[in-house]
Amino acid sequence: MKFNAIAGFSALALVSSQALANAVVVNQGLSEQEVLTAQQGWCNALVQISETHEDDGQAAAKELAKEVIDAAYGYQMGAVLFKPTLTVKPQTFRPTSEGALSYFVGGDPNFPSDSGFALKGWTQCDVDNNAVFIAGDSASTIGKVHFTGPDGTVTSVDKTWGFVKDDAGDVRIVLHHSSLEYQP
Amino acid sequence: MKFNAIAGFSALALVSSQALANAVVVNQGLSEQEVLTAQQGWCNALVQISETHEDDGQAAAKELAKEVIDAAYGYQMGAVLFKPTLTVKPQTFRPTSEGALSYFVGGDPNFPSDSGFALKGWTQCDVDNNAVFIAGDSASTIGKVHFTGPDGTVTSVDKTWGFVKDDAGDVRIVLHHSSLEYQP
Amino acid sequence: MKFNAIAGFSALALVSSQALANAVVVNQGLSEQEVLTAQQGWCNALVQISETHEDDGQAAAKELAKEVIDAAYGYQMGAVLFKPTLTVKPQTFRPTSEGALSYFVGGDPNFPSDSGFALKGWTQCDVDNNAVFIAGDSASTIGKVHFTGPDGTVTSVDKTWGFVKDDAGDVRIVLHHSSLEYQP
Amino acid sequence: MKFNAIAGFSALALVSSQALANAVVVNQGLSEQEVLTAQQGWCNALVQISETHEDDGQAAAKELAKEVIDAAYGYQMGAVLFKPTLTVKPQTFRPTSEGALSYFVGGDPNFPSDSGFALKGWTQCDVDNNAVFIAGDSASTIGKVHFTGPDGTVTSVDKTWGFVKDDAGDVRIVLHHSSLEYQP
Repeated sequence: MKFNAIAGFSALALVSSQALANAVVVNQGLSEQEVLTAQQGWCNALVQISETHEDDGQAAAKELAKEVIDAAYGYQMGAVLFKPTLTVKPQTFRPTSEGALSYFVGGDPNFPSDSGFALKGWTQCDVDNNAVFIAGDSASTIGKVHFTGPDGTVTSVDKTWGFVKDDAGDVRIVLHHSSLEYQP
Repeated sequence: MKFNAIAGFSALALVSSQALANAVVVNQGLSEQEVLTAQQGWCNALVQISETHEDDGQAAAKELAKEVIDAAYGYQMGAVLFKPTLTVKPQTFRPTSEGALSYFVGGDPNFPSDSGFALKGWTQCDVDNNAVFIAGDSASTIGKVHFTGPDGTVTSVDKTWGFVKDDAGDVRIVLHHSSLEYQP
Repeated sequence: MKFNAIAGFSALALVSSQALANAVVVNQGLSEQEVLTAQQGWCNALVQISETHEDDGQAAAKELAKEVIDAAYGYQMGAVLFKPTLTVKPQTFRPTSEGALSYFVGGDPNFPSDSGFALKGWTQCDVDNNAVFIAGDSASTIGKVHFTGPDGTVTSVDKTWGFVKDDAGDVRIVLHHSSLEYQP
Repeated sequence: MKFNAIAGFSALALVSSQALANAVVVNQGLSEQEVLTAQQGWCNALVQISETHEDDGQAAAKELAKEVIDAAYGYQMGAVLFKPTLTVKPQTFRPTSEGALSYFVGGDPNFPSDSGFALKGWTQCDVDNNAVFIAGDSASTIGKVHFTGPDGTVTSVDKTWGFVKDDAGDVRIVLHHSSLEYQP
């Protein structure tokens, strides 16, 4: 006997709505839709930083990028596990928000090899997931992300993201590994 | 600017379905519906054990109860935090499945004070949640549960349940505290 | 072959310290010691509120209780699943901080049956766990808590606590079910 | 007043051991040491597969690799988010254990571009973490891993791992993204 299957669905649905009639529900779990929204939000922000750079210059792009990083990454939790696509030793990883900001918009003498990934005139950014793992209040994704440049050329990267939901209910990136496709 | 709100909903929905077109999704999170189903499953099983006792005797009820405990509780994880309604010292808590089984169907000389809570002729069991907290891959509920006895009398208890999802995707009770209402 | 057992312990310890030499570690897990500290912190605070009441009156006790509730419970997450020992219908559960404060120090016309549990002159509070379940970033405990009153009499209750770690790293009570021992 | 700091440490330690005297403790959290052990276990297994290949041929190496993948990865949970170092489209990702096995030891006509990463004569494998994030019952790491080849040459990769603890208490890799260092 499959114990959980005792109740028929329609009977259950009826009972359930009674069971919750007066209940407060706090839900800290991450839904599939929230994960997809966070991914697409990252893509949209990248394109928007590129457009801001085009229209209003690096300073404006930097201001927007700072806002995006503060809202979308989890640096306030202590560190983010971040390996951007184009970084080199000894600054391959960017566990601080300063390092992330420099990667996206450049211009920071402490990170001399950064030219600003978000300033490359991206016009489109598409997510193509290979697998999504929702662990509950955290989730991971792996797959391709395709960036369309100003001349229409598409650059594809292999990208892993780790997301958590913070106390305020906002989804934040705590892990981000991006790499160019392997060329044999 | 609220970064996550950049994308309009309809545009997002379109992109999202593309983003998942070829993706495998593993979801270990607990949904509200799964929590309610597990609660109602517990209630249904209690009534069914009572009916089995009525129809087929204690041995059959015990067999069913064992099946239910194995399927619905998390004893195989090491222990369940279980304080049944009517237990007394020094066997107030039932961290092992033997103690749980004895509580529900009695007849175990190692638990001499147990008369079998599930053998009391219950005809109905209703859950009335006060609050539900879904932490991701675990969830807790607190509220009243109302038991209707053979003569139609309703007994209400204050009940807390803690649920987790096991590796097989089944929802299991790892915490269960039940108490009679306080009489001033 | 047990794959994880390949490395001998001393060799591993050496390698491990190298592996972490330059690493930032963010740890949101709850340790056993943190759980015990939170439990004993609750007990200590209860006694301290009783003493403050004795020494400085209800208003001072109320101020301290408010401070304790804000620091130790998770009401800012949306709700706490709280069934205090001595509450009655229709206010059995206290999903809001107002209800918790009234339970501990009384004097709130919205909760007319509350006389103030923390004002009863408690001189000692001891935790005696039956089982502890650490799920990772949350934990649950069940067991007895023994309260020593002003005349030395000890009152024992059955108590379940659920704890989580918030974004700031503080341990908070999100679940609390307390009940008098069953009297057959 | 810092509520949790009320109790002095020595007094607390005393009380705590009493609080747990008779308690069962189930701990599903991941410790730092367990994460490091899992990382080093992966490294040791890679070298051991290389040695087995050297000594006993591909079939023996394949058998060992299968054992390692079954024990160390979480394929039985539904999928692993795996981007190996040297894979190419359209088989960049390896969400199934067949794909993982082929990557490590080659010889699978379904994955024609795989030559067997674990057969390259590795003599040493060292983990150099940049950041570790322990979320509770899951953990992520990012950093360099250095592979020493048969001629002493060291190859470094950027590697992200995600670990969970399964119901049996074993640590399993559910996420693995590896990439060659970016060459500007």
